[in-house]
Amino acid sequence: MIPQPLQNLIKHLSKLPGFGPRSAQRAALHLIQSGESMATLQRTLLEVANTVQTCTQCGNIGLTEICHICTDVKRSPSQICVVEGVDDLWAIERSGIFKGHYHVLGGVINAMAGVGPDDITLGQLIHRVETTQPEEIILALGASVDGQTTAHLISTRLAHTGVTISQPARGLPIGAEVDYMDDGTLSIAFQGRRKFG
Amino acid sequence: MIPQPLQNLIKHLSKLPGFGPRSAQRAALHLIQSGESMATLQRTLLEVANTVQTCTQCGNIGLTEICHICTDVKRSPSQICVVEGVDDLWAIERSGIFKGHYHVLGGVINAMAGVGPDDITLGQLIHRVETTQPEEIILALGASVDGQTTAHLISTRLAHTGVTISQPARGLPIGAEVDYMDDGTLSIAFQGRRKFG
Repeated sequence: MIPQPLQNLIKHLSKLPGFGPRSAQRAALHLIQSGESMATLQRTLLEVANTVQTCTQCGNIGLTEICHICTDVKRSPSQICVVEGVDDLWAIERSGIFKGHYHVLGGVINAMAGVGPDDITLGQLIHRVETTQPEEIILALGASVDGQTTAHLISTRLAHTGVTISQPARGLPIGAEVDYMDDGTLSIAFQGRRKFG
Repeated sequence: MIPQPLQNLIKHLSKLPGFGPRSAQRAALHLIQSGESMATLQRTLLEVANTVQTCTQCGNIGLTEICHICTDVKRSPSQICVVEGVDDLWAIERSGIFKGHYHVLGGVINAMAGVGPDDITLGQLIHRVETTQPEEIILALGASVDGQTTAHLISTRLAHTGVTISQPARGLPIGAEVDYMDDGTLSIAFQGRRKFG
């Protein structure tokens, strides 16, 4: 009933995160019915495929073999911020709070999903710390079980290098309503309370 | 921070129904990080753009100028089922309940969204009924305000042709729990109640 090329398109769209079979079908119909946007998307994909590459040093995404963060002389290579993915790197860059270098792990350890230490760029991180000897490693990983398991593993594997290992503070986010916060966040915020004013 | 070609891709993906800026960013990263799926999606889009076309008679999507439903000699052209979009047509075809022809409106009247009678294929439908003189028009439009406004407009505009105009029954769907049904559906189901057994 649905033409084969269109079925293929729906199948490929439904593999995108956030899409299921029904939303992929709706998106495919939208693309067909506005012919211009299908051509544009197709050209854009081709351009991205031909230009965008992964930084061989930190794993960021850019237009050059070594990304603009790694080559920026105003940024300090003595601090390396370890993140799970490129989207975390972008979020930290948006905040403007960090002026060092990054290391993108490409995932976190998850035994259930079969993601082990060899499936992320942990080996490259250890090698990088051993050879470039930075002063500080900031583990900006998620405050989830997987994120914290990974943080512990990294800190164990880097112990022999003597590098300082830190992680962002935990507590109530800006604008938080106390009665909407989960127990874990409240516990960590109370345990880590600081003198007011 | 985000490379320009990638920003373009995120912008185009975020225009797809069901995608916002954040989910588009996640999808774009997914595509980049699995290079194979980006190439496949790009090829699939190209193939769809080159092969898929809209049936000039009913508005269905297929690989030929007149779709396989309009050319199927086992289907009766004396019944035309009017639907809002191709996805509705697919849903009815999946059920196998209908063996006539279709007419895809390409939308429903919505004054707020600026969709008027000239923005849907109403003129073509009237012309089609006048020239082919079918016996019955089934208005399989949504049970929403817009769907019903459109149904009323179509029935008014087709009055002079003398064609029978019907619409699918309204009531409780199969498997429905009464306490989960909205008031409108319950009202319509009670008003339309039928002798049991």
